[in-house]
Amino acid sequence: MDSLTLPPAAPVAEGLPPALLAGLRALLGPRLSLNAAEREQHGRGESYHPSCPPQAVCHPRSTAEVAAILRLCAAAGTPIVPFGAGTSLEGHVAALRGGVCIDLRGMDRILAVRPDDLDVTVEAGVTRHRLNEELRATGLFFPVDPGGESTLGGMAATRASGTNAVRYGTMRDNVLSMTVVTATGEIIRTGSRARKSSAGYDLTRLFVGSEGTLGIITEVTLRLYGIPEVVAAAICPFATVEEAVAAVVSVIQCGIPVARAELMDRRTVQAVNRYSKTEYRETPTLFFEFHGPPAAVAEQVALVEEIARGHGALAFDSAREPEARAALWKARHSVHYAIQAMRPGARVWSTDVCVPVSNLARCIAETREDTERASFFISLVGHVGDGNFHLGLVVDPSDAAEMAEAEALNDRLVRRAIALDGTCTGEHGIGYGKVKFMELEHGAALGVMRALKQALDPANLLNPGKILPG
Amino acid sequence: MDSLTLPPAAPVAEGLPPALLAGLRALLGPRLSLNAAEREQHGRGESYHPSCPPQAVCHPRSTAEVAAILRLCAAAGTPIVPFGAGTSLEGHVAALRGGVCIDLRGMDRILAVRPDDLDVTVEAGVTRHRLNEELRATGLFFPVDPGGESTLGGMAATRASGTNAVRYGTMRDNVLSMTVVTATGEIIRTGSRARKSSAGYDLTRLFVGSEGTLGIITEVTLRLYGIPEVVAAAICPFATVEEAVAAVVSVIQCGIPVARAELMDRRTVQAVNRYSKTEYRETPTLFFEFHGPPAAVAEQVALVEEIARGHGALAFDSAREPEARAALWKARHSVHYAIQAMRPGARVWSTDVCVPVSNLARCIAETREDTERASFFISLVGHVGDGNFHLGLVVDPSDAAEMAEAEALNDRLVRRAIALDGTCTGEHGIGYGKVKFMELEHGAALGVMRALKQALDPANLLNPGKILPG
Repeated sequence: MDSLTLPPAAPVAEGLPPALLAGLRALLGPRLSLNAAEREQHGRGESYHPSCPPQAVCHPRSTAEVAAILRLCAAAGTPIVPFGAGTSLEGHVAALRGGVCIDLRGMDRILAVRPDDLDVTVEAGVTRHRLNEELRATGLFFPVDPGGESTLGGMAATRASGTNAVRYGTMRDNVLSMTVVTATGEIIRTGSRARKSSAGYDLTRLFVGSEGTLGIITEVTLRLYGIPEVVAAAICPFATVEEAVAAVVSVIQCGIPVARAELMDRRTVQAVNRYSKTEYRETPTLFFEFHGPPAAVAEQVALVEEIARGHGALAFDSAREPEARAALWKARHSVHYAIQAMRPGARVWSTDVCVPVSNLARCIAETREDTERASFFISLVGHVGDGNFHLGLVVDPSDAAEMAEAEALNDRLVRRAIALDGTCTGEHGIGYGKVKFMELEHGAALGVMRALKQALDPANLLNPGKILPG
Repeated sequence: MDSLTLPPAAPVAEGLPPALLAGLRALLGPRLSLNAAEREQHGRGESYHPSCPPQAVCHPRSTAEVAAILRLCAAAGTPIVPFGAGTSLEGHVAALRGGVCIDLRGMDRILAVRPDDLDVTVEAGVTRHRLNEELRATGLFFPVDPGGESTLGGMAATRASGTNAVRYGTMRDNVLSMTVVTATGEIIRTGSRARKSSAGYDLTRLFVGSEGTLGIITEVTLRLYGIPEVVAAAICPFATVEEAVAAVVSVIQCGIPVARAELMDRRTVQAVNRYSKTEYRETPTLFFEFHGPPAAVAEQVALVEEIARGHGALAFDSAREPEARAALWKARHSVHYAIQAMRPGARVWSTDVCVPVSNLARCIAETREDTERASFFISLVGHVGDGNFHLGLVVDPSDAAEMAEAEALNDRLVRRAIALDGTCTGEHGIGYGKVKFMELEHGAALGVMRALKQALDPANLLNPGKILPG
């Protein structure tokens, strides 16, 4: 039971204040929903956390409508929970204190593509897949790629990353500016489109990763990149996870600008082969990708092959054809669903620690002592170039003993990572699932975070119960 | 007179509260100075702003001592102004309301070099030159390079950048974590050394660029990079500034990862030749640098030469010898002093707008209509790959009419840049010199910045009068 993690409040049963309900109806008409099934669906993400539904779901179509909703909620003292694609993994969308969910998927316009500036402005509800489809004709792309069909607003709110972060950075690095609605319903822009600025506090980075607790993101301006002239991939099996990790750490330490460096352990490769009908060799495997002009890519591939073989790689198979590469990354992105399919009815508890790369081998080795003893299926995948890896604990949320075992395993993992100068979450965020680790990770700095929250949301109406303990 | 910009308060004449003075003496002994000449020197940077001296200068040697100073000042209600190398350009170190200057140059230890993680932790008073000297044997370097002999703490505090930002980013991108002392004298760490994290608010980015107004930075953990296998430079003269700018914009739009792309106009080349005893052709000139393994660098050089010639480059002279490159970048970094030397007794008022690259040509063209009419010498240099350029207005601060002319020119330039979706400062910061533009640039977002300041420094003791108007 994730009551072990943090007891979600009992779903709020009573209705919304009548004045608020009337105001929202007047504003949104049929785009306000009180339907139980819809509320249930909006109270959960993709992880093991149970649904904790909001009292109403709003479907605004503009920043002005979001601002009007926030003003109505502020007047009523009612909590607000923003919702993108519902792909979050730490209970970010749970309406722990009831209130109004703002579903931003109706705000799905691409507002401006500017190839000359390598940037784009989108509404928060645009998904990363759709953005890249729309960009195709321009020769540009947006690299940040978390697993799900996430919205760009949700990705900004959780400071998401993915398989390309080792080369292109995370949402922290790739959001130029945002439009945000504050707790009082004021509309602000966090910065200009200039590539750099020293003009005051970095509001863009403050709102990136704030998980809806400081304001609601309604528009995002993102950096774009030219689709590389050449893309090459390589599949590189090893006898052990340890050798694979050592190879990646060497590649990073040599400063080779690989675009992707992903690890799957043996069990994950098995699950992927079964789910995606692929035939990868069932052993710990690194998947590399290389971007650039021809000579630079050839140079990188040769260097990485040399390093990998030096660390015991069993093979180094390049996958240059677009189809083979597409299949590879599609398989990689389906890991969450592939391992879930190993056990019908189960859910995946995905851990997310990230440590300095020099501590990665030790962190994984100590963790594997723990996972070998587990009573359920566990996969290991890693954005190992960043020092970030995920265990997928395939658990039955209705089995209290199993959930307690999973929680204890995750607790030990997080403490290990923090002791190794790392973080409890590389890219999934805190939600309410990791609130209990905030004090351990941040110490006195947590007081500064509390002061920021108090300053921007004194009534604690913006996604209450997320990020900050107590 | 920069009273036109913002009147600095008359230097505070009365002494510090006796209890504070006694406390500081007990803490620091001879490392507390009330000497008039030393206070005068600590009240000014390198620009046209007059000195506005603090009432005392402290020379702490540890974070614990800084924390003790802040606790004493908090109890006395006395302002605090942090001081690095005194290279700031917008009056950041002026003690507008008197108080205590904390000179951090005594905190100059390199605490940990970690080649395996490509990071380093230094005290705030270490200069970038010294860091790179100490790193040489490791094969690593720190790229961010503002013009002066700046300290890394000061660079973090102003979100500095320099000639390498087009490839390596600014201090925003290259600070992993910091130790900061808050207004109440509490010591916090803004984050772990993990390359990425989604664990709560991004305190690192909040304190980077906060100019000592939210806390005092005492230690900085920085990203490092491998010294490139090959470094090549190219000098590329053009008949006009417009052609040179168009060439750089094309290079950026093609996504070529140049390490540097710097512009000097004709007058700047003349000043540099005279000051640095160089013999560059006296015409608008681009200076490029390329980093990487051999094939990648050769590929970049060929592409950039093709683009430059397509935009009318008069030549494309490569400078592969380390000596020629060193001379080139030393000359570039001395521009501030070179143009100051054109007029004995004068000071340089350096403007700093930054716009999206597609608006750069227009911003420069409209600005040149203005500068052609000026009554004093003006140079133009640019980190044009970032959309950032500086005019160096060589003025006599005692000539009121000239200062009024300079201020009017800068005002028009800033308004033009903001109208083109840019910023009043790409890398110098706000200090008090640009406070008056904050409302125009940020609109309602300024209210959020005020709320953050109020939350972290309610008594307004941390570098008061900087960043925020009123």
